[in-house]
Amino acid sequence: MKLTRVLPLMACLLLAACGGGESADEASVQVEKAKTYQWKLVTTWPKNYPGLGMAAENFAVMVDKMSAGRLKVKVYGATQLVPALEVFDAVSQGTAEMGHGAAYYWKGKTPTSPLFTSVPFGLNAQEMNGWLHYGGGMELWRELYEPFNLVPLAAGNTGVQMAGWFNREINSLEDLKGLKMRIPGLGGEVMSRVGVEAVNIPGGELYTSMQTGVIDATEWVGPYNDLAFGFHQVAKYYYYPGWHEPGPTLELIVNKPAYESLPADLQAIVEAAARAVNQDMLDDYTARNNAALNELVNTHGVELRQLPDDVLAELNRVTDQVLDEIAESDPMFKKVYASQKAFKTEAMQYHKISEEAYYRARELK
Amino acid sequence: MKLTRVLPLMACLLLAACGGGESADEASVQVEKAKTYQWKLVTTWPKNYPGLGMAAENFAVMVDKMSAGRLKVKVYGATQLVPALEVFDAVSQGTAEMGHGAAYYWKGKTPTSPLFTSVPFGLNAQEMNGWLHYGGGMELWRELYEPFNLVPLAAGNTGVQMAGWFNREINSLEDLKGLKMRIPGLGGEVMSRVGVEAVNIPGGELYTSMQTGVIDATEWVGPYNDLAFGFHQVAKYYYYPGWHEPGPTLELIVNKPAYESLPADLQAIVEAAARAVNQDMLDDYTARNNAALNELVNTHGVELRQLPDDVLAELNRVTDQVLDEIAESDPMFKKVYASQKAFKTEAMQYHKISEEAYYRARELK
Repeated sequence: MKLTRVLPLMACLLLAACGGGESADEASVQVEKAKTYQWKLVTTWPKNYPGLGMAAENFAVMVDKMSAGRLKVKVYGATQLVPALEVFDAVSQGTAEMGHGAAYYWKGKTPTSPLFTSVPFGLNAQEMNGWLHYGGGMELWRELYEPFNLVPLAAGNTGVQMAGWFNREINSLEDLKGLKMRIPGLGGEVMSRVGVEAVNIPGGELYTSMQTGVIDATEWVGPYNDLAFGFHQVAKYYYYPGWHEPGPTLELIVNKPAYESLPADLQAIVEAAARAVNQDMLDDYTARNNAALNELVNTHGVELRQLPDDVLAELNRVTDQVLDEIAESDPMFKKVYASQKAFKTEAMQYHKISEEAYYRARELK
Repeated sequence: MKLTRVLPLMACLLLAACGGGESADEASVQVEKAKTYQWKLVTTWPKNYPGLGMAAENFAVMVDKMSAGRLKVKVYGATQLVPALEVFDAVSQGTAEMGHGAAYYWKGKTPTSPLFTSVPFGLNAQEMNGWLHYGGGMELWRELYEPFNLVPLAAGNTGVQMAGWFNREINSLEDLKGLKMRIPGLGGEVMSRVGVEAVNIPGGELYTSMQTGVIDATEWVGPYNDLAFGFHQVAKYYYYPGWHEPGPTLELIVNKPAYESLPADLQAIVEAAARAVNQDMLDDYTARNNAALNELVNTHGVELRQLPDDVLAELNRVTDQVLDEIAESDPMFKKVYASQKAFKTEAMQYHKISEEAYYRARELK
């Protein structure tokens, strides 16, 4: 750079950075702001996986724009840097500054984590967001992840999922007995108590497992993601509603020292971008699920079925037993579950006369 | 500032601003970034009005933090700078850089604007967000506001509202005949066609109008806001569901030249903050409506009633007529309504087996 260009620029920069009566301290704050950060974000999803995988990608783009390139976040799909189920440890230890996934994957670390994704017959997307941001949920989540050196942020929701793909009809509780189904987590625990042989199989192996008869049924997400996996080629019946995952919240986790090393403006940018993608993923699923459902039903001849009322009622009762038992064995689970259950009772009462009554009213003509 | 402190600082600033091989142009971009903006944001709500009025306040705080004070937004309640119903013109003309309100207030400017807030028997909050962000809605909204020099952003939602406060029971369509009700907009037009004398009265005059019998019924928002207004003191019956406003979207509007004068990072910050408050308001209402409902019913003895099915069905049929008539008279309305209606048909199909089926399943035990 030529000196003739440097000098006016120096004056100009001083004017901008120091202002009229600013101190050197204030000026050094300006310099600090020009510092750039290169972060790694590891995820539990295949790179660019529709819906679930796009939150981290969108987050990185937003943060880059808002920070004018001062915070660059590079997104890694599962196994690109660490395997999916090592995301929590990688961020906890600082191997990556951030992670995107779902809290219920970490129930081996703490039995309370599933309460921050979704529990059977629990809060739907709108209610989870209300509980997290205005019902004390987020404070509890921070408390839970604090010992792991992590700051959690809500970052996406699929809405109510589907109950899953079945190779035989479910007309009664009897039909569940002996059924071999891929259904992990709390839903699997509940299913096993009504006679299902509940197993966990990675997403990538589900198609073949159904095709070869290793399993009789599997849940995954909903039409948007399920269509792409081709489950309609290996199962005849598609059951609803997704009682076991009524509005799973996805999470961004941030390594705490990394988060604290950011200046306040970049911290605020990270939080706002997470909040934005939290809603954005639900918008994406809301817009795309039905077109995929139409294709499954009308093009591929999938038979859509509702789980019978007595089956749902029994699953609901067993869910209460399972959650109460975990609460008795773990004080933190007990505390978080009490908060979430109280919120659910309130939300159910109001949503019965608002959202639910409205869905029904809209069909009257 | 002493020269001994200035010199290392100058070097330091140059390092930060110019980097290794950056040009003077890039450095001047850095200087541009240090420029600060003082914006005015006028709203259609009383200052700090619970729920509705907090979106603008929260937006301003977020933008301040994310921009490290480079974009300061001062929020004015209704009448503090301009009256509520002059917000659109004030931002269009640049008297204020931004405004917060609801698009349906501007139907005198364009009959299409209510489609971006809420229409009777239309999209709920989750569906509006899906349509706006992944269904082409936002592009149409920008097209609609372009001639007014405005950039619209979705910025809040109350969820499904209540049908309103009535001083007599509604058991049939006959009971609506001759009823004098405060219900503005499209809901009012529909009501007038089934025999209601629909009027519009500002919020601040509603309590006295009900008390003195000037009107027999009024709608407002939902329990959270209605309790504070004290409507339970002047009406006995509280009806649901809010068929006329099933998920009103609030808006932030930005003066287009002001928006374009911002550097790209501040534009991104404005957009992300709007997206964040868009969800935040719904979280607030979701968390607070039921406690207010409990107080209305259990402490104040309000009688909660559902509008009869045949009344809802007739209102639904009349709504279709009203919307079709407006579509015939205005090409832009026709275009936007066609897009929204197609999205509604899809969303209704999927939500029937997801959100709606789940609300029902959760009550089975």
